[in-house]
Amino acid sequence: MSDDSNTPTSRARLRVRQVSLDTGRENVVVISRHSRALRADIFRGFSRVELQTGSKVLLATLLITDDDTLVGPDDVGLSEPAFQRFCEPLGASVTIGPSASPESLDAVRAKIQGQVLQSAEIEAIIGDVTHYRYSDMEIAAFLIGSASFMTSGELIALVKAMANAGTQLKWSNPIVVDKHCIGGIPGNRTSMIAVPIVAAHGLTIPKTSSRAITSPAGTADTMEVLARVDVNVDEMREIVAACRGCLVWGGHVNLSPADDILISVERPLSLDIREQMVASIMSKKVAAGATHLLIDLPVGPTAKVVSSAEAMRLRKLFEFVGDHFGITVEAIMTDGRQPIGRGIGPVFEVEDVMSVLANNATAPADLREKSLRLAAHLLEYDPQLRGGAGYARARELLESGAAMRQMQAIIDAQGPSNCRTDVGKLTFDVLAANDGTISEIDCLRLNRLARTAGAPIDKGAGIRIFGKIGDHVEKGQPLYRIHAYDRSELDLATSAAKANCGYTIGAEPPMIGEITP
Amino acid sequence: MSDDSNTPTSRARLRVRQVSLDTGRENVVVISRHSRALRADIFRGFSRVELQTGSKVLLATLLITDDDTLVGPDDVGLSEPAFQRFCEPLGASVTIGPSASPESLDAVRAKIQGQVLQSAEIEAIIGDVTHYRYSDMEIAAFLIGSASFMTSGELIALVKAMANAGTQLKWSNPIVVDKHCIGGIPGNRTSMIAVPIVAAHGLTIPKTSSRAITSPAGTADTMEVLARVDVNVDEMREIVAACRGCLVWGGHVNLSPADDILISVERPLSLDIREQMVASIMSKKVAAGATHLLIDLPVGPTAKVVSSAEAMRLRKLFEFVGDHFGITVEAIMTDGRQPIGRGIGPVFEVEDVMSVLANNATAPADLREKSLRLAAHLLEYDPQLRGGAGYARARELLESGAAMRQMQAIIDAQGPSNCRTDVGKLTFDVLAANDGTISEIDCLRLNRLARTAGAPIDKGAGIRIFGKIGDHVEKGQPLYRIHAYDRSELDLATSAAKANCGYTIGAEPPMIGEITP
Repeated sequence: MSDDSNTPTSRARLRVRQVSLDTGRENVVVISRHSRALRADIFRGFSRVELQTGSKVLLATLLITDDDTLVGPDDVGLSEPAFQRFCEPLGASVTIGPSASPESLDAVRAKIQGQVLQSAEIEAIIGDVTHYRYSDMEIAAFLIGSASFMTSGELIALVKAMANAGTQLKWSNPIVVDKHCIGGIPGNRTSMIAVPIVAAHGLTIPKTSSRAITSPAGTADTMEVLARVDVNVDEMREIVAACRGCLVWGGHVNLSPADDILISVERPLSLDIREQMVASIMSKKVAAGATHLLIDLPVGPTAKVVSSAEAMRLRKLFEFVGDHFGITVEAIMTDGRQPIGRGIGPVFEVEDVMSVLANNATAPADLREKSLRLAAHLLEYDPQLRGGAGYARARELLESGAAMRQMQAIIDAQGPSNCRTDVGKLTFDVLAANDGTISEIDCLRLNRLARTAGAPIDKGAGIRIFGKIGDHVEKGQPLYRIHAYDRSELDLATSAAKANCGYTIGAEPPMIGEITP
Repeated sequence: MSDDSNTPTSRARLRVRQVSLDTGRENVVVISRHSRALRADIFRGFSRVELQTGSKVLLATLLITDDDTLVGPDDVGLSEPAFQRFCEPLGASVTIGPSASPESLDAVRAKIQGQVLQSAEIEAIIGDVTHYRYSDMEIAAFLIGSASFMTSGELIALVKAMANAGTQLKWSNPIVVDKHCIGGIPGNRTSMIAVPIVAAHGLTIPKTSSRAITSPAGTADTMEVLARVDVNVDEMREIVAACRGCLVWGGHVNLSPADDILISVERPLSLDIREQMVASIMSKKVAAGATHLLIDLPVGPTAKVVSSAEAMRLRKLFEFVGDHFGITVEAIMTDGRQPIGRGIGPVFEVEDVMSVLANNATAPADLREKSLRLAAHLLEYDPQLRGGAGYARARELLESGAAMRQMQAIIDAQGPSNCRTDVGKLTFDVLAANDGTISEIDCLRLNRLARTAGAPIDKGAGIRIFGKIGDHVEKGQPLYRIHAYDRSELDLATSAAKANCGYTIGAEPPMIGEITP
C-alpha cells in the first residue's frame, strides 16, 4: 500500500551511519530512542520502516537503542547488509518513516484466501522479494499461502518471474546441457564426475551448484576443496569458453536471486512443497540458459522423495515446466536408500570423486556407476552420438583419463581456493552392536551427524563410511568414522550418534563403541 | 525438534551482557564474530539460536558484530526484551547453540498440509508461542496454515489453549458481564458509558480493553486520559471489589498473552481470518471469567464486517464457542456506516463520553443511544430485572447522574494518569467541496488520518467531526478539523486528507479547503 500518509513531505532528515551488525538477509536499521526525525515511541522494536532519499527506498526492520554512542539522535545506523544494499555514502541524508507493506502483499492475501494469481501479480511479488522488500513473515505468508494449491499457470509465471529477476546467461552453442539432483543423499557428488566426462566429449555444461544450507556439503562446498568456486558471471563465461564445463557456486552468479531468499525461509520452516521445489530448480536452469536438463530424483525411505508415485508427480511437473520454456527435461529415479560413495563432507567426497576419475581399483563402485549412467544420459543429448552409445562413450572418456584431464583443466581454470583441506584428526568410530546384515541407513541422520561434526565449514569434518546396505558385519566392527577439527564438535556428533547412529543391522539398531584416539 | 545434537555437552560458556537494543516482541542476541563459544561462521545473521543455562532455554534471533566494544568474544549480548525474559543476572554463564525449531512446529507443518490438529498439538503450539519460542515467520506459518480451514474442534482447542496460557480471573459473583466490540468504527467508545451504567445498577463488569495497534485509539488509550489503565491483576480485583466495574488495559493483566503475540503478526500482514478473530476475543473473555458477553458487530461498507451475512456467520461462531465454555453470548449487529460521536482520538472521545454521562443537551445523540442500547442488553442479564426493562433502567441510571457518579468512582479507584491531555492546537479544517448531503464517510480513512495526526500517542491529536451522514452541507463548510501537537504530523495528515478526505457529498467527493491558524 503506497499510502500517501507516508509522503515524506516534512520529515526531518537523518544521516546514514553504519552499525557493525551482520543481520544476514534481513535489512536492519537502528535509531536512537531520542531520534529527532520521528519519535521512537511511534515505532516499535522490530516494526518495519522505510528509509528514503530521492527515489531510492530501503525497507528494513527497526531496532531502537538508548545508547547514543551506537547511534546518535541525528543518525540512522544501517546494519552491514542494509548498508551495502542501500548504496548510499556515510553521512548521506535520508528520511525515515513507518513502512506500509509492499503493494504486492495484497496478492499474497488474495492467494491465502484461495484466489488464483495473475502473472503480473506473481511478477510483482517476486520483484519485491528480490529487492528485499518482504520481511521473513511476509515471505512465509507467500510460501504457505501458495502451499495448498498452485495452478500450472501460476507455476509457469513463478518460474518466469524468478528466472527474469537475476542474471540470464546466454550461450552461443545450440546445445547447453545441465544436470541437477534434488538432494538429500549424502556423498552424491556425481556432478564432479559427469561434468568433466561431458565436457571432455565436447558438450557445453556450465554447471552451477549450491552450497549446503542444512546439509553437510553442497557440490560447491566440495568442489571448493579443489578450486575456487565463487566466480562471477564473466569469469564463468571465460572458464566455460576454455573448458566447456565448470563447477562453480551459483550464489555469485546471481541466478534466480529470489530463489535464495525464498529458500532462506522455506528451510527453517522445513516446508516441502512440490511446486516450489520445481520452481526453485527450473528458475535457475532457465536463467542459466540450459537447453537440455537431466534431473536426478533419488527415491528412498529417508530421501527427499519417499515413493515412486511422488517421483512420478515431480517428473511430470519438471517436464511440464521444461516444455513451456523449451528445455528438454529428463527426470530419472535413482536409488536413494543410502549414501553414495564412502565419504560425507567435502574432503571425504573429494577423495571419492578423484578416486573414480583416477580409475583406482578401490574407487567406490556405486558413485562410479551412477556418474557414468548420468553422464550417458547427458551425452546422448549430442545429436552426433548414436542412440544407446552414451554409456560406452562415458566409460571410454573416464577410463582413458580424458575425464580426469578435463577435471584438471577445470580446476586450473577456476584457480586455487585457499581453504583448509586436511582430514579432521579427531575421530570417533561407530561400531556394529551385533552381528548381521546392514539393512537400512538413515540418510537424514548421517547428514545431520556430519554437519554436527563441522561439515561443510570444516572441510575435513564429516564421516568415512565402512559398511553399506547388504554388507555383513560382526559385532564391534566399525560402521563409520566421524572426523572433526574441533573437540566440542566431535563430542556433539558423538553423543548424537550414540543416541541414534542411523544404521539398522538385521532388525536390531546397533549400539555404539568407544572413542578412538 | 529437540535434537540431541543440540546437547550442550562441551560447549564453551559465554557471559550474559545487555545490549541497548529494543527489539519489541522478538528475542535478539548479539555475539562477536570472534566469539570463543562457537564460531560465528557457523551461524548466520538472523538465524535462530538458543541460550541455555541449567534447564532454562531462551530461543532468539542472532545478530553478529565485529565491534568488540559492543559484545566481546566471551560475551553474549541480550537485547532488552530478551534480557528481561531470560531473567538471568549480568555475567551469568550460558551456552549458545544453533536452535532447532520448537517441536510443535511439526503440527504447524501438518496443518499446512491439510491435516486436522489434536487439542494437545494446538496446546503445544500456543505454549511455545506464549513462551516466545516462535519466530515471526513461524507464527505466520501457523496463522496462514490455519487460514484455509479450521474445524470447530480446532477452534475450541485454540480458545482453550489461549485462555489457559495466561492469567485466569475468577469472580465470586455468579453473574459477570462483559462487552466487546470487534472494532473499526472511529469514536465508538460505548464501553466508557455502558460500564458505569451497568456497575451503577449493581452488576459486576470487569472490563479490560486493548490499546490501539493500527487505529487512532483503543478504549484503554482513551480511558487513560481520565485515569491510570495499566493496573495489575491484584489492583484490578480491588477496583472491581470497590466499584463493581473497571476500565483497564488488558495488557498488564496478561489475559491470553498468546493473543497479543499472534496479533502482532496478523496485523502487519493484514490477515483477517474469522476463526482467529473469534479465538482472539473469546480466549480473553474465557480468561477474564465472564459469564455473559455482549458483542457489538458494526456492519458497514468501511467497517470490519461489510455484510449482514458475514455478521451472521460471526455471530454463529461466537455463540458456538460461548456455549462450549458456558458463556451466554449475544452478538448484535449495529450501524457501522460512519464514526460514532464527534471525536476521533483519545481527548476528543473523552469529551464525547463525558458529555453523554453529564447529560449535556449537546452530547452526541448517536453515542448516547448506542451506549444505552448496549447497556440495556447487559442489564437484562440481571435475573432481577423484568424482561424488556433494560433500556428504561439504563436511561434512568444515566439521567439520574448515577452513571456519572459511578464513572467518577472508577476513575478515582484507578487513580490519576499523568499523560498530556490538552487538545492539539495545530489544526487543519477539511471543507466541503460542494453543496449537498453527506452520503458516505470512510471509517478506515478517518482512522488513518487521525493516526497520522499523532493519535493515540498524542492524546490530543485526532479529528473533531462537524458533519455526519444525512447532514446537508454547503460548499466551504467544514466537514471536520484535524488536530495535532506536532507540525510535521499535521502536515502529513493534511496532505493525506487532501488526497482523499474520506467524505462523499452527493455523488461528488469533496475537495479540500485551506489551513486554519
